Amino acid sequence: MNTETEPAAEQRHAPSEDANFIVNIIAAAGDHDGPALRRQLANLDPADIADVIEHVPLETARTIAKMVGRYLPPEFLAELSWERREEILPELPNDYVGRALGQLDTDDAAAVAADIDEKQLGRVLAAADEDTRLAVEEALSFEEETAGRLMQREYVAAPEGDSVGDVIDRMREDSAELPDEFFEIYVVDALMRPIGAVRVSSLLRARRETPLIDIMRSPLILIRQEMDQEEVAQTFQKYHMASAPVVDGAGRIKGMVTVDDIVDVISEESEEDLLKLAGVSEAAQTDSVFKSVRARAPWLLVNLGTAIIASWVISNFEGSINQLIALAVLMPIVASMGGNAGTQALAVAVRAIASRDLTEGNAPRYILREAMTAVSNGAIFAVVLAVVVSIWFQMPLLALAMALAILINFACAGLAGILVPLTLRRFGADPAVSSSVFVTFVTDIVGFLAFLGLATLILLS
Amino acid sequence: MNTETEPAAEQRHAPSEDANFIVNIIAAAGDHDGPALRRQLANLDPADIADVIEHVPLETARTIAKMVGRYLPPEFLAELSWERREEILPELPNDYVGRALGQLDTDDAAAVAADIDEKQLGRVLAAADEDTRLAVEEALSFEEETAGRLMQREYVAAPEGDSVGDVIDRMREDSAELPDEFFEIYVVDALMRPIGAVRVSSLLRARRETPLIDIMRSPLILIRQEMDQEEVAQTFQKYHMASAPVVDGAGRIKGMVTVDDIVDVISEESEEDLLKLAGVSEAAQTDSVFKSVRARAPWLLVNLGTAIIASWVISNFEGSINQLIALAVLMPIVASMGGNAGTQALAVAVRAIASRDLTEGNAPRYILREAMTAVSNGAIFAVVLAVVVSIWFQMPLLALAMALAILINFACAGLAGILVPLTLRRFGADPAVSSSVFVTFVTDIVGFLAFLGLATLILLS
Repeated sequence: MNTETEPAAEQRHAPSEDANFIVNIIAAAGDHDGPALRRQLANLDPADIADVIEHVPLETARTIAKMVGRYLPPEFLAELSWERREEILPELPNDYVGRALGQLDTDDAAAVAADIDEKQLGRVLAAADEDTRLAVEEALSFEEETAGRLMQREYVAAPEGDSVGDVIDRMREDSAELPDEFFEIYVVDALMRPIGAVRVSSLLRARRETPLIDIMRSPLILIRQEMDQEEVAQTFQKYHMASAPVVDGAGRIKGMVTVDDIVDVISEESEEDLLKLAGVSEAAQTDSVFKSVRARAPWLLVNLGTAIIASWVISNFEGSINQLIALAVLMPIVASMGGNAGTQALAVAVRAIASRDLTEGNAPRYILREAMTAVSNGAIFAVVLAVVVSIWFQMPLLALAMALAILINFACAGLAGILVPLTLRRFGADPAVSSSVFVTFVTDIVGFLAFLGLATLILLS
Repeated sequence: MNTETEPAAEQRHAPSEDANFIVNIIAAAGDHDGPALRRQLANLDPADIADVIEHVPLETARTIAKMVGRYLPPEFLAELSWERREEILPELPNDYVGRALGQLDTDDAAAVAADIDEKQLGRVLAAADEDTRLAVEEALSFEEETAGRLMQREYVAAPEGDSVGDVIDRMREDSAELPDEFFEIYVVDALMRPIGAVRVSSLLRARRETPLIDIMRSPLILIRQEMDQEEVAQTFQKYHMASAPVVDGAGRIKGMVTVDDIVDVISEESEEDLLKLAGVSEAAQTDSVFKSVRARAPWLLVNLGTAIIASWVISNFEGSINQLIALAVLMPIVASMGGNAGTQALAVAVRAIASRDLTEGNAPRYILREAMTAVSNGAIFAVVLAVVVSIWFQMPLLALAMALAILINFACAGLAGILVPLTLRRFGADPAVSSSVFVTFVTDIVGFLAFLGLATLILLS
């Protein structure tokens, strides 16, 4: 192939998607062939190394960590999922991990340190230098999923009197102290409170003598250390920010959050919502069968409870079913259609709450719209099902009971779909978790009760 | 309040969340009071202006566009949702929109232009300058949701022979030509093919005489113009990139994608997955009831079809139900538990496919794990339900039929949960859309058939 006319315009192929490569790694680990593992892994991009370690069996991952971990670039630790990281960290030498924490940006170092068990962490920090130890201990003092954990302590700040030239000269001098990558520098007052931000690209194109305050962006959106990471992500997304300063209670700058960390937060949070809605507490590629069962069984158990209550509702109409077996044939349709209408309303509401489209202020309008949507769809399917039942069973009164039951169940489904997550949020709970149980509980009970009750009333009494 | 000790460390309060503010805007629009609207809106951040326009009724939004649109910063157009944008664009003067397209970065200009109807677009582009017209027409020539649409045509490139000083000097000279914000500059060969990238922050700290090729990151990950935006987002996420050059078929640089655009893509794509799994084709804050009905009715119709088939299965066992009414009481439990187990497996599979954790290569391992998880949970709930049924109905053989049916339905649920999305993907379809219908179809049919069939066989034949 002629490399002059065929440049590398293709997507880079991830080694983890190359079955041969993975087979070779597993074989080399099985043979405890350290040199082969090192040859194949050490020169990859850290993201690819992490990817390979995610895609091999646990035993292989442990062997890689034990035999060649010390030769891998420390960034691969930051790229691993926390589950796999937790599994291989005990296999890595403490002095390597200590040095790695010092080389990573503090946000990544904190994420790695959080997955080291307490006993090993003591030894790792003893092997790390003083600065690293202090930075990691401070980061770990914040709760998980807050800005304090997400931020890196490295940032560039300049006093408000500085010119563009002053800052550039200072950065050239203190080059070793700077973060690996930064998009903005922050202009601070005498008390270290950020008052504006200057894009690095603006610094480059401005003349040296320009005062920073002439080109800074202000007012500045500040992130509090204890702010939840989901709120941080929403702020970044709304204002299209590249980075933001993180401040303490007195407004003093303590670190910065950059947009590349936000990318991970957003996909984590939306993934969580998807899984929670389906009743899975967590899921990871590296999960064992045991872990998967444990993540799913609790919700199935709750569902069992609601299903038994629904059955009990049915058992109260045994007499009716005995008189008209068609009731048993048709009743699952009412529950199933209602359940689906409820799930649709719920998914729309959970998404709208997560993206802040649905707030306390406009909730009444949303509820009204959901109610009207539910009743409209209910009317459509009430008519359709009345026709189906009339043709199938030739019983107009049964068709009427079906139509009314569908209408009632759709209305309840729409309201439950929006009111359940709103109520959960009002009580401080996560609107995604356990919403589905409540909603299908409502649609099952209402579905069976309305259909069997109406049929009994209209046809059998 | 003392501003010395209480700085603005709080999250900025969005005007759209201030009910009074919104009420005032609606009132001013109702009075056609242009000056009041302008006074309240024109100085807000463009993201906040867009937010307000999203949160008011359609009529108010149209009045705002008509009366004061021309005084608003053009960036607010880029911040609007496409639905609302489409609704208010016809109210804006064509020359304002033409100028706005010229002031926005080309990726935002293309997004706005895509929502203008064809007739108005002709007039808008006639009012825009030549460069803007060409850039927009080129952008629109790419398919939606590709890198070609996502990229901006403004970027900074430097020949491979340049030093840091050369680039900085040239940027100061051509300052007006530069993109609003950029994180990296690209080093290109004589044919304009990117061979490396230099972070702006690295440029700042390097000495002027340093050759670019000494500090550039290489090899470079390139994005093809026709690459799907979801793939672009995954690449950014995996390699933690701040920006990447977009190239044509010959590998020549045509534009760049920056991470702040990726943030929007990731939340859009994951939101789509969540809604599709729930059977909602699309949802937006500004949807009317009619639009919501239309987005949800099709899937409900499909569900109606599968529910009727499930009922037909039941109708084949009318004789059995007539002999033993407990069958009608208990059969929904089997279907409901199976449906939930299937939804759990499906959510995990869809997430794993979206994040590329689940590939062709490791699919067999995932399938095996799902099967084992399903059988394990099936065994647990088979035992629990056998106990419940024994106590409730005092019929050991009925308990046996229930236990076996649960086990069979859980196994089918787990397999359907993973095989359905994998099969959809293999045939090039979206693994999230319509997966739920197939899976609950399987669990309903299998649930009723297994329970009623086994009960008939064990107890009644």
